[in-house]
Amino acid sequence: MASPMRELERLLPLMERDRLDVVALVGGANFQRLFRWDFHQNERPLVVLLRRDGKAVAVVPHLELPSFNPLGFEGEVFFWRDEERFEGAFQKAGGALGQSTMGKVARIGVEGQRMRVFEQLALARAFPGAEIVDAHAAISTIRLHKTAEEIAELRAAIRVSEAALEKTIARVRIGMTEREVEGLLVGELFAAGAQELAFSPIVAAGDNSAQSHAKARPDYRVKAGDALLFDFGGAINGYRADITRTFFLGHVSDADRAFYNAVLAANEVGRATAKPGITAHDLDDAVLSSLEASPFARFMRHKTGHGLGLEVHEDPYIMRTNGTVLAEGMVFTIEPGLYENDRIGVRIEDDVVVMATGVDVLTSFPRDLRVIG
Amino acid sequence: MASPMRELERLLPLMERDRLDVVALVGGANFQRLFRWDFHQNERPLVVLLRRDGKAVAVVPHLELPSFNPLGFEGEVFFWRDEERFEGAFQKAGGALGQSTMGKVARIGVEGQRMRVFEQLALARAFPGAEIVDAHAAISTIRLHKTAEEIAELRAAIRVSEAALEKTIARVRIGMTEREVEGLLVGELFAAGAQELAFSPIVAAGDNSAQSHAKARPDYRVKAGDALLFDFGGAINGYRADITRTFFLGHVSDADRAFYNAVLAANEVGRATAKPGITAHDLDDAVLSSLEASPFARFMRHKTGHGLGLEVHEDPYIMRTNGTVLAEGMVFTIEPGLYENDRIGVRIEDDVVVMATGVDVLTSFPRDLRVIG
Repeated sequence: MASPMRELERLLPLMERDRLDVVALVGGANFQRLFRWDFHQNERPLVVLLRRDGKAVAVVPHLELPSFNPLGFEGEVFFWRDEERFEGAFQKAGGALGQSTMGKVARIGVEGQRMRVFEQLALARAFPGAEIVDAHAAISTIRLHKTAEEIAELRAAIRVSEAALEKTIARVRIGMTEREVEGLLVGELFAAGAQELAFSPIVAAGDNSAQSHAKARPDYRVKAGDALLFDFGGAINGYRADITRTFFLGHVSDADRAFYNAVLAANEVGRATAKPGITAHDLDDAVLSSLEASPFARFMRHKTGHGLGLEVHEDPYIMRTNGTVLAEGMVFTIEPGLYENDRIGVRIEDDVVVMATGVDVLTSFPRDLRVIG
Repeated sequence: MASPMRELERLLPLMERDRLDVVALVGGANFQRLFRWDFHQNERPLVVLLRRDGKAVAVVPHLELPSFNPLGFEGEVFFWRDEERFEGAFQKAGGALGQSTMGKVARIGVEGQRMRVFEQLALARAFPGAEIVDAHAAISTIRLHKTAEEIAELRAAIRVSEAALEKTIARVRIGMTEREVEGLLVGELFAAGAQELAFSPIVAAGDNSAQSHAKARPDYRVKAGDALLFDFGGAINGYRADITRTFFLGHVSDADRAFYNAVLAANEVGRATAKPGITAHDLDDAVLSSLEASPFARFMRHKTGHGLGLEVHEDPYIMRTNGTVLAEGMVFTIEPGLYENDRIGVRIEDDVVVMATGVDVLTSFPRDLRVIG
């Protein structure tokens, strides 16, 4: 990839389009995509500011300079030490960008889902009178089309995740607690080569599988007939797998088999429908229509999927009303699910990349109903 | 602990003191302390709003209702579905809290280090004209004094973390990569019973140990004479251990031994000085003065420590200029360090809880210089 300053310049046309005089970036996926390094968000703000004439400055905690300096950032850096307050460095940054022939900085675009209020307040004080607008979607478009290098990272993350799942289900036994099963999964993920968890995994059996963001229970022992849902992934160099498979323990009832197969059919519709040129709406509509036509329509709860990359939820959101046209290099999940409260949840989630025609399905873990334990 | 609604009422005196008409809480440590459940922050905002007369409402993604409903929240819940936008639910919440004999909502306190700009903008639109202020420190005081139950959770997290470190260093060999060593540590943490990583661990050898927030390198093999720094922790029920120990591989030079012992002396000063009644400033001053009096003063880079609990960095920050008086139940780190760029970093970090007199040191892993590998 190009140098960070050349990467940063990819934002300039967006700034022109959206009339943003300055864009402010904090640690997170966009920062990582541009600088190939991430800073964990903590109580010490770190912000890179880019003006639409290409001038850039940064506000950096003194403590982070040894990590920041090697990144290839070429603008002026205003640092502050723990025993000072950070506002002074923000003021200096505001001063440096405020003095130009461009006129006053009137609009500042920020990553609305990432920048926190205390950073925004410091920014507002450093640029008095400027309007701060949520430019999250616009800024994040730099990550919308994945490069071949990025897809290779995603493939690697998916490979270790699927290997870990295979080893995990071979070890699951009826009578284990959900948390024990979760422990097996996490251990297998790191053993398989994951560098970090893509997100806190969901390992949920029986009634808990119907909870959207269930947490593994230390006191629930998986029993015969339970659905057992794994929604999980490892990460490699920041790129995240996101896979869901649902198994049954010991045996499966006919009713649950029909429930499962309705989800599987919707997943198949999704993988077959996805292609460049259709919208995210079209894809979600096809998948949800499949579920709506099943006997289980009342158990639907969510849209088809979301983009995937350095963030586990990012654009494009595969959702009715989203007019985004799917295009080559976009990576997203296809994850229909059905949930009967207090009884069962089934979700089957794959990760796909849009190709010149159709999609390449990055996940290859078998989807047919499987009884384990 | 008390019911969530009684816990929530602990905020009312703070709101009176700081003239906050409404407090808005998002997912995170404060939410978890109050509701004993956490919601991971994603693109779907979830906000609980408390008015200073005790009336509360919530904005919740429809998808999260099965997790939210059992929490015991007693106010009105405005939910929104993925295919809608969330602004409508915010408007309803604003309407519900705006109609009262209290007069107009003029000031809203938010968790500035936690709430994101897009949530703040939605809040601002729902309460036109209201001032949104950063009340992070005030709101977080509900977590400042740990209960016996919380300290037991921290002890459990520290116990598994120390057990994992002991097993890890027994397995480290000269020639392993930093990332391999990191893999050992993470595996041992989960094997010892950690439910999650308290934070992304730092495993850094040689020159990398001088980086404040180093990442383990896949291509650097640890070699004889290297310092090897571990800064890590496991978490139990959300409570986080945070421990640093620095070892030497194979042998240690006299110069590095002196460097190490200067840090150890400062750590000892910290543990001996900490007690109720002194300020965070006093404690940091004692520890930093110890380092300043050493031959290595020019290698100082950071303050003594930070609070620890459901967040790995929280109040009280042990820092010169912080006038917070240390008091019973406060938990924080004591972690002096010295860093010579491109050569070596040493940090020794313990977790302590303030008692009626002095502190109880929760960490017990040996601190004397140790050669491993």
